[in-house]
Amino acid sequence: MSYTAWIISIGNELLIGKTVNTNAAWLARKFTLLGYDVKRIITIPDSEEDEVEVFRDAIRRGIRVVVSTGGLGPTFDDKTSEYLAEALNRRYVLNDDALRMVVETFKSKGLELTEPRLKQAKMPEGAKPLPNPVGTAPGIWVEEGNTIIIALPGVPAEMMGIFENYVEPKLREIGPKLHFVERSITVKGVPEADLAPIIERGMKMSNRIYIKSHPKGHEIKAPLVEIHVYVSSEDVKSAEGEVNRIINYLMSSVREKGGEVLSA
Amino acid sequence: MSYTAWIISIGNELLIGKTVNTNAAWLARKFTLLGYDVKRIITIPDSEEDEVEVFRDAIRRGIRVVVSTGGLGPTFDDKTSEYLAEALNRRYVLNDDALRMVVETFKSKGLELTEPRLKQAKMPEGAKPLPNPVGTAPGIWVEEGNTIIIALPGVPAEMMGIFENYVEPKLREIGPKLHFVERSITVKGVPEADLAPIIERGMKMSNRIYIKSHPKGHEIKAPLVEIHVYVSSEDVKSAEGEVNRIINYLMSSVREKGGEVLSA
Repeated sequence: MSYTAWIISIGNELLIGKTVNTNAAWLARKFTLLGYDVKRIITIPDSEEDEVEVFRDAIRRGIRVVVSTGGLGPTFDDKTSEYLAEALNRRYVLNDDALRMVVETFKSKGLELTEPRLKQAKMPEGAKPLPNPVGTAPGIWVEEGNTIIIALPGVPAEMMGIFENYVEPKLREIGPKLHFVERSITVKGVPEADLAPIIERGMKMSNRIYIKSHPKGHEIKAPLVEIHVYVSSEDVKSAEGEVNRIINYLMSSVREKGGEVLSA
Repeated sequence: MSYTAWIISIGNELLIGKTVNTNAAWLARKFTLLGYDVKRIITIPDSEEDEVEVFRDAIRRGIRVVVSTGGLGPTFDDKTSEYLAEALNRRYVLNDDALRMVVETFKSKGLELTEPRLKQAKMPEGAKPLPNPVGTAPGIWVEEGNTIIIALPGVPAEMMGIFENYVEPKLREIGPKLHFVERSITVKGVPEADLAPIIERGMKMSNRIYIKSHPKGHEIKAPLVEIHVYVSSEDVKSAEGEVNRIINYLMSSVREKGGEVLSA
């Protein structure tokens, strides 16, 4: 079993640069901490052609978990659920559980059940609705072959609310049994280019490690570089030990180069 | 001639959620203002397989302009230039102009020309280097068939510096002769679902218009929605007239629904 993930961000506002895609970064972080490997983040318009193509592509490649955000709202261009049904070659039907959720939400608010609101209870046949603790549109959980597809709203509070309450526990349950530990140091006085061979050697010290340098200051005049070390392991103690071993190696190498370690 | 664009964001830090992709939003905004239609934003790891696949996919689809960010630095995993050469089936060679830029930059800073630094002057055969006003790695401009591929560094200041100085003027020159006008209003007291039919009618008032609602407040208790109207046109006066016509229609429709327009 491979624990791969794709994030599909749907919405023209992302493609015209009106909105920065913080949803994708948040989800990527969550996946990484859960031990999943985010292979790709794809932003596409609210378009039938693009949505169907990308969902099918993820299934064809056998990606384990696909999360989409956007296109579940009540407006006429919110059609992710319908296009997802098409991508799966399934009927787009009123889901009984979703209808109960939607009706209950609107009743409790004293709001009328209009056609655009009822649309939020329609899903691909065989999908399970995920309760939305913040807004009205339920999320969608549907499986096809080895791939789990989860469609979430684009409003960050709704996306996060559904994910943390109903998606994360399930992904942890079916995901890899891994512990994930990270640490970073900030290095002053050594340009990124001179850190490169140090990091390269560090990267070879373990298979389950990732080291990345992030330049913060001015590349040449006042080099300031953050070095981030990530380790995952089945065992939390060995992950912590591994991170400490790499950090110690990095700190002594940086000091040999005449650099200063600002924080560890 | 179609004025389509793809943005390719390269870097594991984006896929583990360490970095929010502000570069892509900035570029998308620039493209939109220049009259280009950003069709897709794709985030992939620093991997040969992914980079070659995605560059080739963009060329195969005849995308007019492809901009990538990331992977031009001096570290061992910065291989965008090399993988781009592979995607183009071209040799990966030392570029004379790029070498001059790199040597000059390092000389002026009194820095040694090391192997990882020299790598920044290697490019696909036939590419043109774009001067980097901030850091050391030149950008890359290369054409294949009808597609222009521009590879930029991932450090925002370097990416923006190269784009604004050397890319934007060229894209404006070869791009569509369009004027782009936008305006937004904030609506209080009408839930997004009730705005949907109003927006749908507004969207049909013109072909070159896009209206998008962005919920800001609490969806049901205190609905606050920003409505953003975009119009592009060959003629700036007609674009402005069109935006005003749509905004006036939206304001009167919202007031008919008992809503309040907070800003226009």
